[in-house]
Amino acid sequence: MEMNAVRLIRRGGKKPGLPPGTLIHVGKKKIEKAKITIIDYDEKRFQEKEAKRIEECFPFKDKPTVTWVNIDGVHETDIIEKIGKHFGVHPLVLEDIMNTEQRPKMEDFGEYIFILLKMLYYDDKKDEIVTEQISIIFGTNFVISFQEREGDVFNLVRERIRNGKGRIRKMDSDYLAYALMDSIVDHYFIILEKLSEKIENMEEGLISNPRSETLQTIHKLKREMILLRKSVWPLREVISGLERGESSLIKKATKIYLRDVYDHTIQVIDTIETFRDMVSGMLDIYLSSVSNKMNEVMKVLTIIATIFIPLTFIAGIYGMNFEYMPELGWVWGYLMVWIIVVVIALSMAFYFRRKEWL
Amino acid sequence: MEMNAVRLIRRGGKKPGLPPGTLIHVGKKKIEKAKITIIDYDEKRFQEKEAKRIEECFPFKDKPTVTWVNIDGVHETDIIEKIGKHFGVHPLVLEDIMNTEQRPKMEDFGEYIFILLKMLYYDDKKDEIVTEQISIIFGTNFVISFQEREGDVFNLVRERIRNGKGRIRKMDSDYLAYALMDSIVDHYFIILEKLSEKIENMEEGLISNPRSETLQTIHKLKREMILLRKSVWPLREVISGLERGESSLIKKATKIYLRDVYDHTIQVIDTIETFRDMVSGMLDIYLSSVSNKMNEVMKVLTIIATIFIPLTFIAGIYGMNFEYMPELGWVWGYLMVWIIVVVIALSMAFYFRRKEWL
Amino acid sequence: MEMNAVRLIRRGGKKPGLPPGTLIHVGKKKIEKAKITIIDYDEKRFQEKEAKRIEECFPFKDKPTVTWVNIDGVHETDIIEKIGKHFGVHPLVLEDIMNTEQRPKMEDFGEYIFILLKMLYYDDKKDEIVTEQISIIFGTNFVISFQEREGDVFNLVRERIRNGKGRIRKMDSDYLAYALMDSIVDHYFIILEKLSEKIENMEEGLISNPRSETLQTIHKLKREMILLRKSVWPLREVISGLERGESSLIKKATKIYLRDVYDHTIQVIDTIETFRDMVSGMLDIYLSSVSNKMNEVMKVLTIIATIFIPLTFIAGIYGMNFEYMPELGWVWGYLMVWIIVVVIALSMAFYFRRKEWL
Amino acid sequence: MEMNAVRLIRRGGKKPGLPPGTLIHVGKKKIEKAKITIIDYDEKRFQEKEAKRIEECFPFKDKPTVTWVNIDGVHETDIIEKIGKHFGVHPLVLEDIMNTEQRPKMEDFGEYIFILLKMLYYDDKKDEIVTEQISIIFGTNFVISFQEREGDVFNLVRERIRNGKGRIRKMDSDYLAYALMDSIVDHYFIILEKLSEKIENMEEGLISNPRSETLQTIHKLKREMILLRKSVWPLREVISGLERGESSLIKKATKIYLRDVYDHTIQVIDTIETFRDMVSGMLDIYLSSVSNKMNEVMKVLTIIATIFIPLTFIAGIYGMNFEYMPELGWVWGYLMVWIIVVVIALSMAFYFRRKEWL
Amino acid sequence: MEMNAVRLIRRGGKKPGLPPGTLIHVGKKKIEKAKITIIDYDEKRFQEKEAKRIEECFPFKDKPTVTWVNIDGVHETDIIEKIGKHFGVHPLVLEDIMNTEQRPKMEDFGEYIFILLKMLYYDDKKDEIVTEQISIIFGTNFVISFQEREGDVFNLVRERIRNGKGRIRKMDSDYLAYALMDSIVDHYFIILEKLSEKIENMEEGLISNPRSETLQTIHKLKREMILLRKSVWPLREVISGLERGESSLIKKATKIYLRDVYDHTIQVIDTIETFRDMVSGMLDIYLSSVSNKMNEVMKVLTIIATIFIPLTFIAGIYGMNFEYMPELGWVWGYLMVWIIVVVIALSMAFYFRRKEWL
Repeated sequence: MEMNAVRLIRRGGKKPGLPPGTLIHVGKKKIEKAKITIIDYDEKRFQEKEAKRIEECFPFKDKPTVTWVNIDGVHETDIIEKIGKHFGVHPLVLEDIMNTEQRPKMEDFGEYIFILLKMLYYDDKKDEIVTEQISIIFGTNFVISFQEREGDVFNLVRERIRNGKGRIRKMDSDYLAYALMDSIVDHYFIILEKLSEKIENMEEGLISNPRSETLQTIHKLKREMILLRKSVWPLREVISGLERGESSLIKKATKIYLRDVYDHTIQVIDTIETFRDMVSGMLDIYLSSVSNKMNEVMKVLTIIATIFIPLTFIAGIYGMNFEYMPELGWVWGYLMVWIIVVVIALSMAFYFRRKEWL
Repeated sequence: MEMNAVRLIRRGGKKPGLPPGTLIHVGKKKIEKAKITIIDYDEKRFQEKEAKRIEECFPFKDKPTVTWVNIDGVHETDIIEKIGKHFGVHPLVLEDIMNTEQRPKMEDFGEYIFILLKMLYYDDKKDEIVTEQISIIFGTNFVISFQEREGDVFNLVRERIRNGKGRIRKMDSDYLAYALMDSIVDHYFIILEKLSEKIENMEEGLISNPRSETLQTIHKLKREMILLRKSVWPLREVISGLERGESSLIKKATKIYLRDVYDHTIQVIDTIETFRDMVSGMLDIYLSSVSNKMNEVMKVLTIIATIFIPLTFIAGIYGMNFEYMPELGWVWGYLMVWIIVVVIALSMAFYFRRKEWL
Repeated sequence: MEMNAVRLIRRGGKKPGLPPGTLIHVGKKKIEKAKITIIDYDEKRFQEKEAKRIEECFPFKDKPTVTWVNIDGVHETDIIEKIGKHFGVHPLVLEDIMNTEQRPKMEDFGEYIFILLKMLYYDDKKDEIVTEQISIIFGTNFVISFQEREGDVFNLVRERIRNGKGRIRKMDSDYLAYALMDSIVDHYFIILEKLSEKIENMEEGLISNPRSETLQTIHKLKREMILLRKSVWPLREVISGLERGESSLIKKATKIYLRDVYDHTIQVIDTIETFRDMVSGMLDIYLSSVSNKMNEVMKVLTIIATIFIPLTFIAGIYGMNFEYMPELGWVWGYLMVWIIVVVIALSMAFYFRRKEWL
Repeated sequence: MEMNAVRLIRRGGKKPGLPPGTLIHVGKKKIEKAKITIIDYDEKRFQEKEAKRIEECFPFKDKPTVTWVNIDGVHETDIIEKIGKHFGVHPLVLEDIMNTEQRPKMEDFGEYIFILLKMLYYDDKKDEIVTEQISIIFGTNFVISFQEREGDVFNLVRERIRNGKGRIRKMDSDYLAYALMDSIVDHYFIILEKLSEKIENMEEGLISNPRSETLQTIHKLKREMILLRKSVWPLREVISGLERGESSLIKKATKIYLRDVYDHTIQVIDTIETFRDMVSGMLDIYLSSVSNKMNEVMKVLTIIATIFIPLTFIAGIYGMNFEYMPELGWVWGYLMVWIIVVVIALSMAFYFRRKEWL
Repeated sequence: MEMNAVRLIRRGGKKPGLPPGTLIHVGKKKIEKAKITIIDYDEKRFQEKEAKRIEECFPFKDKPTVTWVNIDGVHETDIIEKIGKHFGVHPLVLEDIMNTEQRPKMEDFGEYIFILLKMLYYDDKKDEIVTEQISIIFGTNFVISFQEREGDVFNLVRERIRNGKGRIRKMDSDYLAYALMDSIVDHYFIILEKLSEKIENMEEGLISNPRSETLQTIHKLKREMILLRKSVWPLREVISGLERGESSLIKKATKIYLRDVYDHTIQVIDTIETFRDMVSGMLDIYLSSVSNKMNEVMKVLTIIATIFIPLTFIAGIYGMNFEYMPELGWVWGYLMVWIIVVVIALSMAFYFRRKEWL
């Protein structure tokens, strides 16, 4: 069982005491070479291209159209640094982008807003939740997004921009940033459904037939819930910070949409809490069932032992070899023993039935 | 055992990344065809009709009388869309109305206020709580309510309007919206009574005679409480939001009534918390009782075994076939064994009584 | 075991959906006919009388003296309605007075303040806490108090007014309202003492001699604590609402006294929380003691069984009837068996002593 | 085991419903006759005397020097009343001083500030924590302190005033009040050290050798923690109330010192919480250890029983007296039985070793 | 097992009641002689020297360059006092510096800011976390830091100043203070990694093979978490106090960096909470596994005992010595017994298999 939640705290290469803003990639390298995609649009025009060199996106900065630069792979210090310089991004932000073990956060630098989120995938092979860090920087007419690897999470947003569907082409960069966040939060529901299925499967036969695998499953679910919580909980502040903030970058029309993402986040958090309650309730039930089963085992042992131990004693008595044992000579002695045996057995059975053990 | 609480999180058809405001019905379709009822009234006039087409309610929008449009069934995209257009409702609100797995919420859009609540029924057949989502939109002189299916929850309000009883005919649309919310919250008390009965039934014999069904019942009650909590808890904010909000749509006279619904909501929440405390106390008691019972079983086993095992050993000794065993030839040997047996049994019994095991 | 805490939520007769302000008595009728007492006083004058009809108290309304109307019995719709009309009380307040299952609350209506509290008695016969709802309405120069039945809780206040002792005759209606609340909160300490006694009794012998009745007592105490908490907790807000409120009805001199009641309420709440901690600690201790006792039972069983089972086996061996068993013919064979038996028994005993089981 | 924590709630003599401000001593009388000490000083002068009658301290009230009146014993209504009258103290304050079962609190009456604290001693004989109530009233140039009995808690402060050491003689009455509070809070650390020792002692051998006395000790520690918490927790508000309050009685220079006491109080509270966490962790460990030990007992029983019960059966078979039992006549029959016995015993032992029971 | 967390509360030498600001070293003396190092720099110049006497650092106070005085060893009253006098530090601050059992805190004295932190090391020999108290005082152009002993925690900061790398040489004393705090918080991650490793190691085989050492390890981890929490939790307030404070000593440019340390602190706290959740989950799992194992032991015992006890009884019956026992004379009697024995054994085995015990 791999330990995702624990892994989160490894700072990998960074040595304590290094100057802040030192660009060092922390985390697993998930892609060979960073991939840069540029999408530039306004209501009428639309342009999309893959950039070989990061410098290709620089001219878009001062165009009035909305430019979205998406970078898959955050391990190339060079690219991050150049972007930082050209777009005037604070070194601490660049450090955060490259350190993939950050907590979700939002910072308003006036000129631009920096948002850091966690994308969650379900890795079906390993049967566990995988997190990926996504950073979004947006200013007056540009959005730069960073992913750890190529993913399909933003594909539908891309599609909407291409087709000019919905209001995305009519809106500014803040709406695009919202659309990206919305995609991520929407993906959380897929994880929740997965977990919900797992809980449902586990619950069947929890009381009637508790197995020791159940314990393992409960344990794993608990861990996943802890990890999930850690990734989603801070989102609440992030989004409400955006919504209530006074940045001129976020237009009033977009705030209604942010409120909607906020509601979804609350719903996700609520559901996680509900799941936590459920799973810890299930542990209680599991333990009680196991204890009930043990009780049953004990009863069987007790019934058999308490019936036969006295009987064996009686048989033992008449197996003694004393010379003077009058009963041994009686004609009906043997029958008498059987009668005693049956009477004892029956009265024991009656006693157990009254105690509701049988 | 169906899993209501878990079901709540299924987003059904919606694909993540779709543009916000996309109208897709999420949830089970509970009614074949949507049913539209229009009630129009002021202090003197009253008109009620069932509409075939949604357009029939449009002319009422600009009348000074209060118009209440009630729609049973939220799966017909067409109807929702038309209402949205005619009454100027934000697309995100329409999306929420059609997605029946929302969290209760309230949003003030200036022109109108949107309220989303959960109605709770008790399904006696399945012996479980069923939730239904109810959305209310109200503006200066109209109230539009959406239910998932035909229900009788608003019948008494309808009756009051028809009869002109109480102050409802003299008041504005905000009072009507209040009256609808009040009906819903009043219904919660029925669920609470049902749960209270169940808890009372379960409690009888909890200590004296714990059964393994009890465990199942406690488990089910816990789940229902989790579900209930999830549906009712957010209501607190919803109603206090209405009461404290500064919307001109809500008159001062109505606020006193909103305060009353608020008090009822708090009472419901309080009672749910009390029930939670009780049920989790009952689990503790159940476990203790089971453990006490097991203790009793163990004692019986121990008493029987510890009395007869040594006796059987003595009988075994004199069952040995050694040629030179002087006791076997004694005339009083057999009697002596019986005396030893009785003495041992009595002293054991005395020991157990002193230990309070008998 | 009656279920007080659960009973609290029954709304009895009220049908959901009835217009707000409908006067229906909810709860058990505890008195046959309502009894009305009027006390009218200022610093110099004092008048006390029992009224046959509620109308007798109306003339006092406009007198400058302080008038205290006390009504025992809240089931007579007629009386409540007339008082409501004459003193200009809001219908929702009247509804709350008649519904004896309300949560403690305070509402400031400008002209008058409405306070709803729970009086707690200890019913020695049923050995349980009984709650009674007390409502207080007070305006510039009148206080109206409602009790469910004739009680002696306000007797000492009455006495103080009659005798003109203390500052009560010199103060206004707000001080009288305070004095009534103070009496009620003072009574809570009696309940706390009763509970404290119970806890003390239970604790004796909790560790040395846990009985299964203890479980029942703990269970009952827990329930009573839940009930108590539900009745007292909201009082905190009620009184701090009065103290911090800006009503002109409450004079500055009275606020110091309200602060005193507030402190007492906090002390009551603190003590309830302390009791809760104690009782749940006692459940832990009880369970541990039971488990310890079971451990002891197991040890006895194990010692007896592990000593005698091997010995019985040895006796069994020499009870076999093989023709060729050399030991059986030995002269010292029988003695040898006894020596083996004693050696085994002693070495077992030694082993158990080393394990600290004996 | 005496129940301190519970004792706290007894209101002793006070009858509910008495007028507020009635002076009745509540609590155990811990001293025969009240003792009054007066210390009067400024930077240059110093005077100390024991007063026979309370009136002796009255002339000091209007002197510009700082006067500290310390009264040991709060049961003499007469003294309390006279002080109240002369220094203009509110009757509710006097009531609080005489009722030794109050919660720590602070009240600012403009002219003077009233502080009520709990002093904690460790009674080594009874091996338990003893609380004493200490009240402090201070105005422009006087401090009056009330203790339940003669104690040495303020001796070091007295010494500092006598010697003119530190800045105490240069400062005003607020600094003296601070110095008294500081002494009390400093004493809490002694209690904490005592508890820390107890926890340390108990911990040794908690896992290796859990005894049933441990349970009792844990139980007692838990109770003491509950009591401690109740006495110390409210202090937080008391001191931060003084520090942040806007009373002109507290000079800016003193506030830095109050901040220091506040920090100590937080440290005390923090440590109590840490202890609580530890002790409840120890209960878990204790229970687990007991359960582990029981497990070991069970294993021994199971090993012995499962090895010898089948063997005894075999011996029993050949102890049967059938006429036609071929094995009995075999020359090697007896040896064969022994071989079977040894094989069974060894294979059982092997099985248990594989299961890691041996 | 040494008790770090408990040790924290020992106030060592300080007697309660001493005047505040009395300089007494509290805690273990970890170094023989205090060591004083002075670093003085601005963008162009750099000077570093080790001082024999504390007076050597006084002249730097009024230079415009940034001066960093680091003192290893806080037990020499003399040094602390002289620094206090020369730099105008409040006596309470000096007391706090010498008392190494303080809670992390921050105080703004206008002229200078006082910060008290806990450095955490992992002592590999004792296999436990060791805390060291670090105090930082900084004013317009000086930073004074106090450590309990020589440590390498600030080495990298020193290196950065020497090399003039990063922006440290260009910034003021507030940035230096930040850099010191940042080093300390960065070190916390090392502790977290260590704990994460321990948790990971423990988890392997937790379910499959619970050992009683596991209990001890869980217990130790829990304690370390309690200690860690106590040291880190208050840091949150400390740093947010600096960031949000209005001190003119902290420049705007530095605040962004403080925000970064704050984020790291939150991440540390979050991770500690996650670990706590995990470890307490592991205790549950451990207990369940132990209980499961015991269940298995019980089953083996029950199976063996319930199969052989009845069989032994049958053998006992035919071992009786009655003269008239017809079966004994039957030719097929002995075979019949074996058949009965096999039938009983098989039907028992069948029963157990149906119950899923085998």
